Amino acid sequence: MKKKIEDYVRTIPDFPEPGIMFRDVTSVIQDPDGLKLAIDSIEKLLKGVDFDAIVGAESRGFIFGAPVAYNLHKSFVLARKKGKLPCETIEETYALEYGTATVEMHKDAIKPGDKVVIIDDLIATGGTIEAIAKLVERLGGTVVKIAFLMELEGLQGRKKLAKYDVASVIKYPGK
Amino acid sequence: MKKKIEDYVRTIPDFPEPGIMFRDVTSVIQDPDGLKLAIDSIEKLLKGVDFDAIVGAESRGFIFGAPVAYNLHKSFVLARKKGKLPCETIEETYALEYGTATVEMHKDAIKPGDKVVIIDDLIATGGTIEAIAKLVERLGGTVVKIAFLMELEGLQGRKKLAKYDVASVIKYPGK
Repeated sequence: MKKKIEDYVRTIPDFPEPGIMFRDVTSVIQDPDGLKLAIDSIEKLLKGVDFDAIVGAESRGFIFGAPVAYNLHKSFVLARKKGKLPCETIEETYALEYGTATVEMHKDAIKPGDKVVIIDDLIATGGTIEAIAKLVERLGGTVVKIAFLMELEGLQGRKKLAKYDVASVIKYPGK
Repeated sequence: MKKKIEDYVRTIPDFPEPGIMFRDVTSVIQDPDGLKLAIDSIEKLLKGVDFDAIVGAESRGFIFGAPVAYNLHKSFVLARKKGKLPCETIEETYALEYGTATVEMHKDAIKPGDKVVIIDDLIATGGTIEAIAKLVERLGGTVVKIAFLMELEGLQGRKKLAKYDVASVIKYPGK
């Protein structure tokens, strides 16, 4: 029987800390059919969306963002941790459970008026993606869609992204 | 006139430290034509190569490895910095200019007998890729090709990878 995308996801209890059910995408992408299904499913979420660029969130967002950008002939832009991008950047700092993190984009990566899709493997609390969306907007772009392979509904990341059009391929009710 | 892949690469002098000419791939991939040309050029390097899996080196190797794995319907395997992979891993530690770094792969990512291609954006000293090749071999795989978008010939990374079939799309004579 044909496998669904969920069938390729391996769940690891208590990683990286107790109480977290870690949804592992490596088991999806290391199966050629899983990889194809994941990319094709994310692409389906973008059907009918008119856009110029895909922003991939470091680093698992690169795995899914790059093939979709290639397939749809779009610009692929990196959102990276602080200090990794060589040219002039803008940055946003956001709260983590403990402490903060900072994400950067190149200033010339998005042009004013660009319609932008953000792609990542998973939405948990949504903090990173909210920061990336702000960077896109500060550069004059418009976030027209945010697409994830997986969503942990229990963490309510969508609330943080309420003003955006958010879609995910797989929804898990828990954390 | 049709642009060559070299035309998309932006060079930043003295990044991340004085004396280094940083070859930036973000300028390649944020142009839809540059992204397509980069992926297609890497794929050409693999023409006629019989293989099962692509290993992408964190994190820029994910950008190029994932689309090629998708296009050629192969397994895509992550080589990541220590502590990022959730299941049982093996690791290799290698020397950097100052200190050491450790790279990991999941133990089940490569099966004995697998023919493996390693992809990264750039070969400099070759230390990371040599460590990844060792991981592949420790898991029973055979490295049948190592493909880069860019090569800094002045750093002689090929010497470290002399026993492998190494190819790169763009060669820069310097460092």
